[in-house]
Amino acid sequence: MDGLVSGSTVRVELGDKSYEIAIAPGSLDELGFPMAQLNLGNKVLVVSNPAIADYYAERALASLTNAGFTVFSHLIPAGEQHKTLDSIQTIYDCALEHRLERSSTLLALGGGVIGDMTGFAAATWLRGVNFVQVPTSLLAMVDASIGGKTGVNHPLGKNLIGAFHQPRLVLVDRQVLKTLPEREFRAGMAEVIKYGVIWDLELFKQLEKQTRLDRFEAVPPQLLNLILTRSCEAKAQVVSQDEKEAGLRAILNYGHTIGHAIESLTGYEQVIHGEAVAIGMVAASKIALKMGGWGQNWDQRQLALIEKAGLPTRIPSEVTIDSILESLQTDKKVKSGRVRFILPYFSNKTFNKERRGAGANAEITDRVSEDILREVLASLGAS
Amino acid sequence: MDGLVSGSTVRVELGDKSYEIAIAPGSLDELGFPMAQLNLGNKVLVVSNPAIADYYAERALASLTNAGFTVFSHLIPAGEQHKTLDSIQTIYDCALEHRLERSSTLLALGGGVIGDMTGFAAATWLRGVNFVQVPTSLLAMVDASIGGKTGVNHPLGKNLIGAFHQPRLVLVDRQVLKTLPEREFRAGMAEVIKYGVIWDLELFKQLEKQTRLDRFEAVPPQLLNLILTRSCEAKAQVVSQDEKEAGLRAILNYGHTIGHAIESLTGYEQVIHGEAVAIGMVAASKIALKMGGWGQNWDQRQLALIEKAGLPTRIPSEVTIDSILESLQTDKKVKSGRVRFILPYFSNKTFNKERRGAGANAEITDRVSEDILREVLASLGAS
Ligand SMILES: NC(=O)c1ccc[n+]([C@@H]2O[C@H](COP(=O)([O-])OP(=O)(O)OC[C@H]3O[C@@H](n4cnc5c(N)ncnc54)[C@H](O)[C@@H]3O)[C@@H](O)[C@H]2O)c1
Ligand SMILES: NC(=O)c1ccc[n+]([C@@H]2O[C@H](COP(=O)([O-])OP(=O)(O)OC[C@H]3O[C@@H](n4cnc5c(N)ncnc54)[C@H](O)[C@@H]3O)[C@@H](O)[C@H]2O)c1
Ligand SMILES: [Zn+2]
Ligand SMILES: [Zn+2]
Repeated sequence: MDGLVSGSTVRVELGDKSYEIAIAPGSLDELGFPMAQLNLGNKVLVVSNPAIADYYAERALASLTNAGFTVFSHLIPAGEQHKTLDSIQTIYDCALEHRLERSSTLLALGGGVIGDMTGFAAATWLRGVNFVQVPTSLLAMVDASIGGKTGVNHPLGKNLIGAFHQPRLVLVDRQVLKTLPEREFRAGMAEVIKYGVIWDLELFKQLEKQTRLDRFEAVPPQLLNLILTRSCEAKAQVVSQDEKEAGLRAILNYGHTIGHAIESLTGYEQVIHGEAVAIGMVAASKIALKMGGWGQNWDQRQLALIEKAGLPTRIPSEVTIDSILESLQTDKKVKSGRVRFILPYFSNKTFNKERRGAGANAEITDRVSEDILREVLASLGAS
Repeated sequence: MDGLVSGSTVRVELGDKSYEIAIAPGSLDELGFPMAQLNLGNKVLVVSNPAIADYYAERALASLTNAGFTVFSHLIPAGEQHKTLDSIQTIYDCALEHRLERSSTLLALGGGVIGDMTGFAAATWLRGVNFVQVPTSLLAMVDASIGGKTGVNHPLGKNLIGAFHQPRLVLVDRQVLKTLPEREFRAGMAEVIKYGVIWDLELFKQLEKQTRLDRFEAVPPQLLNLILTRSCEAKAQVVSQDEKEAGLRAILNYGHTIGHAIESLTGYEQVIHGEAVAIGMVAASKIALKMGGWGQNWDQRQLALIEKAGLPTRIPSEVTIDSILESLQTDKKVKSGRVRFILPYFSNKTFNKERRGAGANAEITDRVSEDILREVLASLGAS
């Protein structure tokens, strides 16, 4: 990508909707350059939250202004509880106030919450305006900012309202992770481990070599670079093969079936997304063990990685098994009333380098029996 | 289309999003059959308004139930003023209550208001569920139900919020027009005349032959059939060539630039959509005349047709020229601050059979001067 001093670029191949993920330290200050090459209209509305804006909005706005854009900004309070249609309306109001046009751009400067909302507003304002992602959390960098899933929560369920709307550019500057709360860094690491399990054995092994994965400072820049690049590659490859989640893309929901239930049942604050996914991966691994085709050793290796990242591995005891089963029924992952699980099924035999990228390391199934599910949930501490 | 006794079928070619418009009298009672062939999930949520539901919901629901679907229904009060995000939320709530899944279907039974809202809900619930259109107004049959534009109004502007989401099927049963208020019938006729002007000379001439076009009873069934079929064909052809309105599709906004301003300034009730379009076409024709490339005779022939359909041709006198100019600036059709007009430019020479379907009968331009605009608006009665 021209104009960015150094770094790597991952391309998301989606025909005329293809775009690049530019991964380069310090790139926040040069944001305007790659955007200027995209033939966007003049106006950019930067959406962020107050905390992130305090750290980074000035630099982003300066770079955009220098590149010749007319820039506006809009803040939404931090937190999953603000990922609502009401917040989207405030973006609409701002877009109207500044007379955004179809060629204008909505830019998300923030974590997955800001990214999902900004993307949904971009998908639906004037039936679609340009969208740029500048993810600031690890989770958003490796996952939420890529692939065009956008949306908000319904009072009774997460991400039930949304649209597919691909960004025109994703810009990843790992230096902003310095200010990310440690707990959020760990949460993002859950999605990284996910890619290691379902897609990229090499990434998995590199993570295993490292003694600590629980804070930004503990991870050497080179490893962090590898983490970002390979995770983005994994996500990009899956999305390119199945943009709208007709099949393969569902494997990215590894750990998310039970994860979403736990998030939802604990009100999205006590257990945050990545933590819930960590618990969900532990659960999926145990289910896979019970159903066969998955080795005790792999279950243990995954567990060790999750612990090394300082992530929870057990279900909060106040969450009941019945409430989880009930919650799974309202989840989007239900098909004809049956819950779909993503299960890892690699073993030393099938999980090898040759399989990397083939998507052969996870299986989508709706054949998990209620008995197995209850057993596993109980063993992980659900009441 | 199997299962429908008689009638014609128009195909909207959009690759794997292609679908059919089934035009057949009495087809409302057989709705379930063509839907059963579309590989939809079991659940169908029918969205309508109380007046239309009173007439037709029972028949639609019976047909769906007979075909094996599990059917729910949801009503939204009639009127453009209810085409809001708040109404969409009530559809979401209903979708959640009945646990709609990704394979489920939202079916719009109503005019353009119900169609646009139901489509937007279908576009955004679970990031997209199946959508079927059963238009009950003439305007919805020939225009709103085809092409996948969905959306709602912002308090400060019409259709500012929306998404593209193609239906899987459009089912047109002209018999339901019997109960359509006459004023609404005339409003729909405005869009029919539009196709005659910008796309289909043969349709234009057939309309000219008929002495009255201002009520359902005045139009012979055969002509009504021709009107429906050729209008749907025109819309289908334009949409197939340019789904997302990157270029050509904008010609369908003929009459809509000034039309939207008038609708908006009169609060969407005093002047309804089709009436506003009629006035807008008169205005566009006068602008084209002043700019050259359009003949006095064609201006008069269009005017005669509009009058024959009992549609207004003048701007309500309380609407000021300044307010129209101001309103045009917030309209979606603005590009880089300049207002885009669709102008007819056919003459006896260029407007001939060979050109039919070539899209050569209208021109998109942002070169209309403020002077000409003011002159034309004043000549049509704006103050
Ligand atoms: N669209 C997708 O494909 C996708 C994928 C995964 C997750 N998600 C969504 O993403 C959301 C979770 O994203 P998240 O984990 O980034 O949460 P988040 O956006 O809430 O960010 C977490 C917290 O970190 C703060 N923060 C972010 N970056 C910071 C920085 N550089 N410095 C200081 N503070 C910073 C935020 O203000 C927030 O308080 C969920 O809503 C989830 O549904 C979407
Ligand atoms: N999506 C698109 O491409 C597109 C195109 C054109 C217009 N539109 C939208 O469509 C809307 C206008 O549609 P409309 O003119 O159908 O208005 P509408 O939906 O409000 O219907 C007009 C009135 O007729 C009544 N009605 C409809 N069918 C009836 C029937 N068979 N019997 C008795 N009453 C009936 C309705 O209850 C309503 O009161 C506007 O909101 C406009 O923005 C959308
Ligand atoms: Zn996730
Ligand atoms: Zn119209």
